[in-house]
Amino acid sequence: MTKDKLTIVKVGGKIVEEEESLRQLLADFASIEGFKLLVHGGGRSATKVAADLGIETKMVDGRRITDDDMLKVVTMVYGGLVNKSVVARLQSLGVDALGMTGADMNIILSRKRPVKSVDYGWVGDVERVNGEALSALIRSGVVPVIAPLTHDGEGHLLNTNADTMAGSTARGLAPYFDVRLVFCFEKPGVLRDENDDDSVIARIDRAAFGQLKNEGIVSGGMLPKLENALDAIDSGVSEVIITKASSLGNLDAGTHIVDNKMI
Amino acid sequence: MTKDKLTIVKVGGKIVEEEESLRQLLADFASIEGFKLLVHGGGRSATKVAADLGIETKMVDGRRITDDDMLKVVTMVYGGLVNKSVVARLQSLGVDALGMTGADMNIILSRKRPVKSVDYGWVGDVERVNGEALSALIRSGVVPVIAPLTHDGEGHLLNTNADTMAGSTARGLAPYFDVRLVFCFEKPGVLRDENDDDSVIARIDRAAFGQLKNEGIVSGGMLPKLENALDAIDSGVSEVIITKASSLGNLDAGTHIVDNKMI
Repeated sequence: MTKDKLTIVKVGGKIVEEEESLRQLLADFASIEGFKLLVHGGGRSATKVAADLGIETKMVDGRRITDDDMLKVVTMVYGGLVNKSVVARLQSLGVDALGMTGADMNIILSRKRPVKSVDYGWVGDVERVNGEALSALIRSGVVPVIAPLTHDGEGHLLNTNADTMAGSTARGLAPYFDVRLVFCFEKPGVLRDENDDDSVIARIDRAAFGQLKNEGIVSGGMLPKLENALDAIDSGVSEVIITKASSLGNLDAGTHIVDNKMI
Repeated sequence: MTKDKLTIVKVGGKIVEEEESLRQLLADFASIEGFKLLVHGGGRSATKVAADLGIETKMVDGRRITDDDMLKVVTMVYGGLVNKSVVARLQSLGVDALGMTGADMNIILSRKRPVKSVDYGWVGDVERVNGEALSALIRSGVVPVIAPLTHDGEGHLLNTNADTMAGSTARGLAPYFDVRLVFCFEKPGVLRDENDDDSVIARIDRAAFGQLKNEGIVSGGMLPKLENALDAIDSGVSEVIITKASSLGNLDAGTHIVDNKMI
């Protein structure tokens, strides 16, 4: 059986927070054909609003410590300011957008991260994506716009990493759609030489990843990104693309992470 | 043809912003049988967050002047903080809540209020409720939780009066459901004697309203409330109930605004 194509785009805070890049992103996203879904960040705005409210932002390993006050800030910024602004803009472009968090229609349930060496506070690790509800919504013509917040099913919202949410959502929808997951990145893809934007590695499968890692060509923050992408592929996602936001209009560009069988 | 019953509850900011009253409200709302929808306010929180951000709140005739900065605040507070907190809490009570503004799924389109003697800024007057999309969503088992924000279809969010939104939503859904619209109020209903909570007027139709108005029994802020309610009745809403939030568990209480033919 051939499944319908679904494109899931994850875009970071930086792009949705600047008028020029946001305008371009939304125009490109609107022009993607077929079923689609957007997951956005908003960390920079959250940090700014927190500072304006006299609340200090504390990060550990790039993750935000989310105490009671910070949970209010991210709920306001991710679920309200960023999400609803994007929704209104997409509606004006003819996209039937619906802003959601994981709590809405119970689409993404998570568990508060257990305290080990660090107490991250109200931070959630995704437990379950309600692929059935989400796919019915998408098939009805709605385009979900998902903010990086989930819930624990006990009445608490949880701050959740947007990359992880996009990956989990892609996996949760893979039984229902032929899913293509696009991570918008500041560079045009995974680079063989980080100083040369023309050195994009076009295709990576698990074997190629092992080799690139051994050779030290991919390292640092790119490692978890690629591991996350390969896990998504193993879970039935057809393709993961790492590309520049400004290349959203041409998804043949960028780095395509695929299953071994496809190369 | 008998239409299915739909209960629309409008609740002000005061009730959703205090833990005790919110807990009671959500428990009562969760126990309402059949199709339902919640419209909430959040003005007090918006004023507080604005003050914390150093933004002054200006009101004219009880309406908030909404400049660029205040629009950001109400988008954060109504669309994010209040809305998503209510959604997460309702989910924990087994209600399949979906938080929405008028922009989401384009359910409520409005027009920026023209500048006459007062420039209200980014304030919208409701133009059109997408009853078809909303009723399909409700019939699928989802319970919309609507924040007092709409959009103009051109990419702008607009701050919109929650009472008006509840009334417009009730009218827009009247072709699809047998709609009962409940306004939660600080008093147990419309009182014959404002100092006597036992003097609730049980039923009001248009003729009774004219009489109560002539006798000076209803006046002030209650006049537009009742006019709004009678307009809703004229537009096909079955019943409008003005009651105390704590009476949501027993909707036989309160003041019932009905069509002449029903008395």
